[in-house]
Formats: sequence, C-alpha cells, structure tokens
Amino acid sequence: MITSPDNNKLKTIRKLQRKSWRAKLGLFCAEGEDLADAAAAAGWRSEFVLRAGEDVEPELLAEVSALGSGTRVVGVYAQRWGRPEGALLVYLHGVEDPGNVGTVIRSAHALCDATVVLGPGCADPFSPKAVRASMGSLFARPPAPARLEQLSGRVVALDAAGERALDTADLTPPLVLCLGAERDGLPAELAAEAVRIPVIADSLNVAMAATIALHDCARRMAAHA
Amino acid sequence: MITSPDNNKLKTIRKLQRKSWRAKLGLFCAEGEDLADAAAAAGWRSEFVLRAGEDVEPELLAEVSALGSGTRVVGVYAQRWGRPEGALLVYLHGVEDPGNVGTVIRSAHALCDATVVLGPGCADPFSPKAVRASMGSLFARPPAPARLEQLSGRVVALDAAGERALDTADLTPPLVLCLGAERDGLPAELAAEAVRIPVIADSLNVAMAATIALHDCARRMAAHA
Repeated sequence: MITSPDNNKLKTIRKLQRKSWRAKLGLFCAEGEDLADAAAAAGWRSEFVLRAGEDVEPELLAEVSALGSGTRVVGVYAQRWGRPEGALLVYLHGVEDPGNVGTVIRSAHALCDATVVLGPGCADPFSPKAVRASMGSLFARPPAPARLEQLSGRVVALDAAGERALDTADLTPPLVLCLGAERDGLPAELAAEAVRIPVIADSLNVAMAATIALHDCARRMAAHA
Repeated sequence: MITSPDNNKLKTIRKLQRKSWRAKLGLFCAEGEDLADAAAAAGWRSEFVLRAGEDVEPELLAEVSALGSGTRVVGVYAQRWGRPEGALLVYLHGVEDPGNVGTVIRSAHALCDATVVLGPGCADPFSPKAVRASMGSLFARPPAPARLEQLSGRVVALDAAGERALDTADLTPPLVLCLGAERDGLPAELAAEAVRIPVIADSLNVAMAATIALHDCARRMAAHA
C-alpha cells in the first residue's frame, strides 16, 4: 500500500498530466474502472494500475487525479497509435479541444467502427480529457497521426460555410470525412468543396457535426452491406 | 476600474459558481465575448458586465472565472426559463452532466429551433459549464422545467437498450423526444417503448444521441414544410 506522495508511481501519474511528459515517457493515464475495463477488453496491458484502498491511500490517488477527486482507479499505459486504414476515416484538422477529439474517437468507433486520423494542430488524444471523452474507444480504435495527402478514399469535407447540404454528398465507402476546428475551420482548398449540416441558428461544434455525419455514414454502410 | 478582490460585483460572480447561490440570487454568469453577444442578440439585459482592463483589473477577473484564466468578459444575468411549448420538445430525464445539458440546448436550437425541457434530476442549466456548452443557445431558447406528463405531442424515447431502431420511429411533429442519463437511462415505462441508435460498440452519450435524433427531426420537419 502506497502511503507517501513521493512514491514513484504517483510521481509518474502527476507528470503525465503534462503533454511534454507524456511525449517524453510515451505513456498516458486512464482514470476510472470503465476505462481500465475497456483497455483490458481491447488487449492493452497496463504499465501499472493503482486502486484506491488496495494499492494506494485514497487521498493520495485523488491528489494525482487529473479529472477530479472521485477517481478510484488510475491506469498507466504505453501510447500506441492506430494506422490510417479502413473503409471510413475521420480526418481532423486543427481540432485543439481534447474533449472534442475524444468525443469524435468515441463516435467514430461506436457508429462506424472507424479510425480517427489526427492532422496538424489537433489536441493530444492521450490527454486526460481526451481519454475520458473517448470512453474507452481510444483503446479499441486508437487514432492515427497522418496528413490528408497520405489517405486514400473519396474526400468529403464538412464545414459550416459549405455551399451544399450534407444530404447531397455521396457517402459510399471508401470515404475520408474531413472536419476542422470550430473557429478556424478547414484549409481553404478543402472548405471550397465542403458540405454543411443545415442549421437554424449558431453552428454545431466539431464533435456534434462529426457524430451526425457518422450516423449518416453508418446508414449508408448498412444499406450497402 | 475595480482594483480590489473585495468588490461586491466580484463577490457576486464568485458566489454564482455555486448552485445554492445561483438559486438564492436568481442570477447566473456567462463568460466570454461570444456569450455576451448572444445574450444581447436574444434581447437579454445583463445585471452587469465586467470587462478585463476596462472595468476590472484582468487578474481579478481571471480569479473569479469559473472556466479558466483566459476570460476577458463576465456578464451576470437574471435567470429566465422558457415555456415547454412548440412543435418539437426535447425532454431530458436525470441528465446530471452540465456539459451534456448545455450541448443538448445548443443542438436543439441549432438544428430544430426546439426548446429543451428539464425533468427531474437534471443539471442546473445556469451552471458555468452548461452555459458555456450551450454557446448562447441558452439565451435564444432557454430551457423549461417541467414533467413529462405536462407536455403534449407524440412521445419518442431514445435509449441504448431500445428494441427498435430510430429509423422506424415516426418523427412527425408535434413530438416530444425523450432522453435519459447516460448510465441510468429512462424510467422503465419510457424505456419499454424506446428506440435506439444502432451502434457497433459502446454507446453514445446523451448529447450525441440527442444531436443525431434532432438532425433526423430537422430533416423530417424540412420534408413537411
């Protein structure tokens, strides 16, 4: 039972809240029983797992939690990336919000079993918020770092300023669904051909737009199966 | 220019981070220029607005921010609720996560101009996270507190354990779209008749499920218009 805040495992967990340390150590944390289960189900072996009251005093684990005081389990894993392959890829450009990156990973997995490709300027998918938002899909379908030019498949870009509606797009696989950051959107060459989701007011965030489009892709794939 | 942390306006903003104080004062905060603009566009008058460097020293405003240090504008508004009326209502039951409540308010407004109805056990829509996630839609379409029995329209419940797929549901308005909490779901009598969004793995969070269904409703409403 760990009883000192100077314990090396606790020190590692504390470091992994920072991107620079995650990159240096090639590790990341997943907090909570659900994520530990998802990791195991996807065949990931942890470097170590600390359980409150079993391996470590609950207050010490709470102190190193990145997500709040309720955490009872923290697992540390080696970072592992996916490959940009499959009938459907979701390509994100400049999506800086880790919650959105994690949510898109979750949607892509849940709706289409698709891999998310992270282009330039995207948030670290191994950050605590992204891992949490992915709800285990990070383990099942780890994202792939790549540039759009490296991907194969018909490109369909989604942008709030697109001229045509999403319903007019051909979503037959193989497909690369491209989405940009909420504010800056996609690079001009992609935005020029983009389709949009019709809205009455405001716009949707990138995770919501991706989820809608992925649901349409899932329908399309089911119709073709 | 406010230069003391003991200033009464700063004290009020600090209090409004807590639900008990929001209820007692009947006020809430909106942080950021976008939200201040959205409030004005929707015809809401603030109790007061503090701008960093104009009305208050930036460090003092950063200290009372509920969302992080980057906030340059904080507005304080009187809470105002909507009415549970319209061709489409989104009824939430026991959705405790304020980010999800705010996101559903945003989606309902953006996709269908619909009002969100908050049933028992939902998060306070005037909490900082909910206000932020709503991205101004809270001002344009404030949610209504009500029980399901008070609403009129065909009830379509969405639940991960539903037997039929969403595609089989009749989404013709007037419609009440019902969603429950991610873990506990809907009450048994609603869940029994629920439709689901087909997923390959895991499930979707309530905000994603609502967004997908709202997009289908928007299509349906457009086809009928």
